[in-house]
Amino acid sequence: MLFAVLTNDGIELNMNTIEIIAKKREHKKLTPTEIKYIVQNYVAGKIPDYQVSALLMAIFLNGMDYEETFILTSEYIKSGEIIKFDNISKPLIDKHSTGGVGDKISIILAPIASACGIAVPMISGRGLGHTGGTLDKLESIPGFRVNYSPIEFKYLVEKNGFAIISQTDKLIPADKKIYALRDVTATVSSIPLITASIIAKKIAEGIDGLVVDLKLGTGAFIQTEEKAEELSKNLIHIGKDFNKKVNVVVSNMNAPLGVAIGNGLEIIESIEFLKGNLSKKDSHYTDLIELTYFLVAEMLLMGNIVNTIQSAYSMINKVIANGTALQKFKTFVQCQQGNPNVIDDYSLLGKAKYKIPITINKKGYICAIDSKEIGLAMIDIGAGRKVLDSKLDYSAGAKIWGKIGDEIEKDETIGYLFCNNAYGEKSAERIRNAFKITELPVKRQKLIKKIFKREQITNSTNS
Amino acid sequence: MLFAVLTNDGIELNMNTIEIIAKKREHKKLTPTEIKYIVQNYVAGKIPDYQVSALLMAIFLNGMDYEETFILTSEYIKSGEIIKFDNISKPLIDKHSTGGVGDKISIILAPIASACGIAVPMISGRGLGHTGGTLDKLESIPGFRVNYSPIEFKYLVEKNGFAIISQTDKLIPADKKIYALRDVTATVSSIPLITASIIAKKIAEGIDGLVVDLKLGTGAFIQTEEKAEELSKNLIHIGKDFNKKVNVVVSNMNAPLGVAIGNGLEIIESIEFLKGNLSKKDSHYTDLIELTYFLVAEMLLMGNIVNTIQSAYSMINKVIANGTALQKFKTFVQCQQGNPNVIDDYSLLGKAKYKIPITINKKGYICAIDSKEIGLAMIDIGAGRKVLDSKLDYSAGAKIWGKIGDEIEKDETIGYLFCNNAYGEKSAERIRNAFKITELPVKRQKLIKKIFKREQITNSTNS
Repeated sequence: MLFAVLTNDGIELNMNTIEIIAKKREHKKLTPTEIKYIVQNYVAGKIPDYQVSALLMAIFLNGMDYEETFILTSEYIKSGEIIKFDNISKPLIDKHSTGGVGDKISIILAPIASACGIAVPMISGRGLGHTGGTLDKLESIPGFRVNYSPIEFKYLVEKNGFAIISQTDKLIPADKKIYALRDVTATVSSIPLITASIIAKKIAEGIDGLVVDLKLGTGAFIQTEEKAEELSKNLIHIGKDFNKKVNVVVSNMNAPLGVAIGNGLEIIESIEFLKGNLSKKDSHYTDLIELTYFLVAEMLLMGNIVNTIQSAYSMINKVIANGTALQKFKTFVQCQQGNPNVIDDYSLLGKAKYKIPITINKKGYICAIDSKEIGLAMIDIGAGRKVLDSKLDYSAGAKIWGKIGDEIEKDETIGYLFCNNAYGEKSAERIRNAFKITELPVKRQKLIKKIFKREQITNSTNS
Repeated sequence: MLFAVLTNDGIELNMNTIEIIAKKREHKKLTPTEIKYIVQNYVAGKIPDYQVSALLMAIFLNGMDYEETFILTSEYIKSGEIIKFDNISKPLIDKHSTGGVGDKISIILAPIASACGIAVPMISGRGLGHTGGTLDKLESIPGFRVNYSPIEFKYLVEKNGFAIISQTDKLIPADKKIYALRDVTATVSSIPLITASIIAKKIAEGIDGLVVDLKLGTGAFIQTEEKAEELSKNLIHIGKDFNKKVNVVVSNMNAPLGVAIGNGLEIIESIEFLKGNLSKKDSHYTDLIELTYFLVAEMLLMGNIVNTIQSAYSMINKVIANGTALQKFKTFVQCQQGNPNVIDDYSLLGKAKYKIPITINKKGYICAIDSKEIGLAMIDIGAGRKVLDSKLDYSAGAKIWGKIGDEIEKDETIGYLFCNNAYGEKSAERIRNAFKITELPVKRQKLIKKIFKREQITNSTNS
């Protein structure tokens, strides 16, 4: 099996691949031809997974410089189609999040931004491991479809101003194949590999600009401020060299966002947000509201829809208050074949059989929440997936309102777990253990830690 | 294909593997259980190549400490059978070379050592890339067989005092599978991986002691003295902890050994050596003779056959002069079904159609020889193999007598290329270019650079 590639035809192929792996292993810079060779032949099935995974680990450990990352991005882009929105005059801006627990922002942000005059062509992903996926959440709406061809996607965005679909084989097949390999070989959180993957995918979407929500913290891929800064600058530089505006918002990912976690529950929370039913004064929603507003505002500023963050916030308030954001969401659900009645009848999303209280048996202050553990607990009850073909239970999930800094009494309930299988107690216990309590008061953590803007970055080669 | 392992049964398996890869990626020490888990499940086909290759690259770049290497060796050994030579009272000692160009020493050393009273159970390899393989050389003898079961191998060694066979599936399958993967993922020259591979294989052979010929130089896997010292000490330590005597001879691999390169030609040179026809005074053979004598002497000292290197050399001279070494070789060829008449009739090994002189068009002194390039030139004429199933041309090869330090005239012939295909001129040119000539005299290089002996190494944990 191992030597299947070593045919007469494959000799040169194989020899070159080994030399390229050895070069990166020795900390040397790969040439554009070498990067091209690897990407093209891997996509064509001419280089086996085991050689590419060794190279990915060498890249993970020895890095890639700016030029190598640029070429890699460029080869990713060349591997597939690029969508062109010729009939859209609005600014085409997307948001990308590096993944978190309870992160339903895309579902709320896209209709709001669209209601404010931004076209949002969003290609999203599924959940894997401890993080949830936007597509899974949307599919909890009966009938909702996410598989569309590039032409259909174009039509959807032109019609309603935004659409959220899954990646197709035609868009960046190189990234699709390499990402799947990175996922199972512990080579995900590499800055050049993340940069190429994000930028290439977004360029294929046909956007003008991109706002990245870079999650920083124990539950995220990026765990230090230095790495966050490096990745942010890299994303902005590479974007710039492909003539795309990129801004990066570094946000705290040390706790789940909002209250709902789990597919159907997050759809309800998103609709409640769009209905204007979540109060900024309710501290359980502060993080979700603050980050969503901030990210939409960045999109509106980038698209020159507004000039100040204040006018962005007023505009967002307005499209929520007058129902246009909700209407956008409704049309979106209809266009993508979902049942729009969910907006008024949440029971259409299903209801879990069991509701288990999550209580903390200690008086004090919440000082840390292991959101990765919470994400992993979701897998046990079927709200998240272990592997790509896991079946999801859309009504399973949790509502957790305990936030870092909250003072709690002994045996106070800080949330509920909702499930249909036998793992409820075990998962609830796992969530309880994810909360660290101290006796001394704890300062609330800042949600938005830093913003890196394109204008601040002048020289694209000194990264 | 990528997610083939991700069945319900494979989930835990896969998750653990990713965590183990991530751990080594983060420079952390793997536990015995983790190493065992990887080796056992990889051999059982439950972990895919692409995950193991990522782990191998992480091990290559981040290393393994002494304990991890010991456990890895131990798991390699446990993966297969161990041969026990209950009926042999002679010391069982083998020699292992890390691979070179023109290295036919095993074929000469085994009959000599055997004639001196050492039992040599040798499991050898095939050539791949620029280095030749002992088994390929032996197979140029008509009828010669190298595939034997462990029981047959035992019988052969008991009968004639030595045998040279190929690795079977039953002996160290873990090393067999992992070595094949290392070979195509640029993860060969890692000290812990080399150590485990050599020691485990040799322990499975049932030996008491091992002399390692560690090649150092541009054409070898090990290219610095520091790395050679580290590997030597590691081999000795690990051997010691498995109760095996290991000594390491570090030898210069900056030029091919002896004159003949290529399968049939090297058999002829080996027979000439055993016949006593190669003169120590002939500078073309000094390196081959010096290293062979030294390695056999190390084996005789290790086996307590002699007490001094002088008496070892006398004994070697004697078994060559009285024909017992040659007789051992003859019985060996017969036992392994080869035609013993080759000893008197070299034409049985075939004769190449073309003979192309290798001339150097510059007067001066040979200051460097790129033996890797010479090895690669051999591939083009069919004397070496690019891939494991390449067909070999046994009569193709070269005789090169130009050595580092030799003074040459303009257009002096320093060797001949022998071939049957159209690549002769191209390969001869490649060999010519492998020679670097200077105007100033060049000092001859020391062949044996260093010896690391078991007795010198006291503490097995401070490597």
